[in-house]
Amino acid sequence: MKIGIIGATGNVGRVIFKEARTRGHEATAIVRNAAKAKQMLGNDIDVLEKDALALTKTDLSDFDAIVNASALQPAYLNLDLATKLVSLFRDNDHTQLVFISGASSLVGDDGSFQIDNILKTFAGQPWIETPLQQVHELQFLQWIDNVKWTVMTPQNDFVAGDKTKFRLGTNKIMTDKSGKSQVSFGNFAAALLDELKAPKHVHQQFTVVDD
Amino acid sequence: MKIGIIGATGNVGRVIFKEARTRGHEATAIVRNAAKAKQMLGNDIDVLEKDALALTKTDLSDFDAIVNASALQPAYLNLDLATKLVSLFRDNDHTQLVFISGASSLVGDDGSFQIDNILKTFAGQPWIETPLQQVHELQFLQWIDNVKWTVMTPQNDFVAGDKTKFRLGTNKIMTDKSGKSQVSFGNFAAALLDELKAPKHVHQQFTVVDD
Repeated sequence: MKIGIIGATGNVGRVIFKEARTRGHEATAIVRNAAKAKQMLGNDIDVLEKDALALTKTDLSDFDAIVNASALQPAYLNLDLATKLVSLFRDNDHTQLVFISGASSLVGDDGSFQIDNILKTFAGQPWIETPLQQVHELQFLQWIDNVKWTVMTPQNDFVAGDKTKFRLGTNKIMTDKSGKSQVSFGNFAAALLDELKAPKHVHQQFTVVDD
Repeated sequence: MKIGIIGATGNVGRVIFKEARTRGHEATAIVRNAAKAKQMLGNDIDVLEKDALALTKTDLSDFDAIVNASALQPAYLNLDLATKLVSLFRDNDHTQLVFISGASSLVGDDGSFQIDNILKTFAGQPWIETPLQQVHELQFLQWIDNVKWTVMTPQNDFVAGDKTKFRLGTNKIMTDKSGKSQVSFGNFAAALLDELKAPKHVHQQFTVVDD
């Protein structure tokens, strides 16, 4: 598959990029700084150097899948990028779009959304904008039925680490063997590439937890 | 004021355009067909001929206000235009954006949203997409706090007719003297131009009813 990865030099983006290449896909790093991407990911990689918010339909027309692994600041730009990507892929029933949206949209054992607890507990903190915009991104996508979107959500601890074993869930907080709500970048990337190969969560959110 | 009116050749767009000119504003018709606009609104008018979804920040940088009076098909394009306009005006604390969004987002005396009744009663009808996307447009805008947006909603009957007298409301169904939930294009346009002159509904929805 031809996979375009927006934010391929980010913490999780680079792991997804490498996993895609390991599996034999044609991966393209869609990044603002091509030199940085080549230094990080290898001189032989395919790069599309462009600000994500300036991408056009033509730029993205050759990809079978677009993975948005970027984390823009200010946080509202992530919502703008999601709405933009949707508008570029309207009525496209081929290209898969995978968005990565943080754990604030997960639901706890008591049925409460984590974002509601965050808003109560940390009202006024500037960093709240990031989880809030991520939830809006998910809410926006849930209105969209003519774009092949999937939202992947990590668990609360989203940490560097290799691919081992993992389980999937819907939008619940889940725990690994030691009781931690945690997923490694390696496991997350593996689950993402599995989804691209055999999509099971079109128009859905799903989460990944270390086993 | 310099006012750009997207969809200035539409039923209500043309009334807004004329009201703006009558009040001495510099109105620009933002339309797909300049010849049609000149034929309808006068050869001396200012026209920006462009597909609304292709508008750039530069195209719109000179305006004090943008009025979106377009009604695009398929209906999801209206949501795409709203998200696009928001992205173009992020962190702009000068330019007013006025969106016109249909009566489906109004609330009845029993507290129910009209869209919910529409979805129940007319499930499966293709035209449902239009009120549904209009509600999504409003929901989306309600997340946005760094763009000077206002949503104006007509009453159930939105009809040709001159400016007479009118009242404003929030998001409730209201009635004129004869008990009809109705507003004329003329009254709606007058209320809109009043709002541009002295904004009282930034980050809010409001409705207009014939007196």
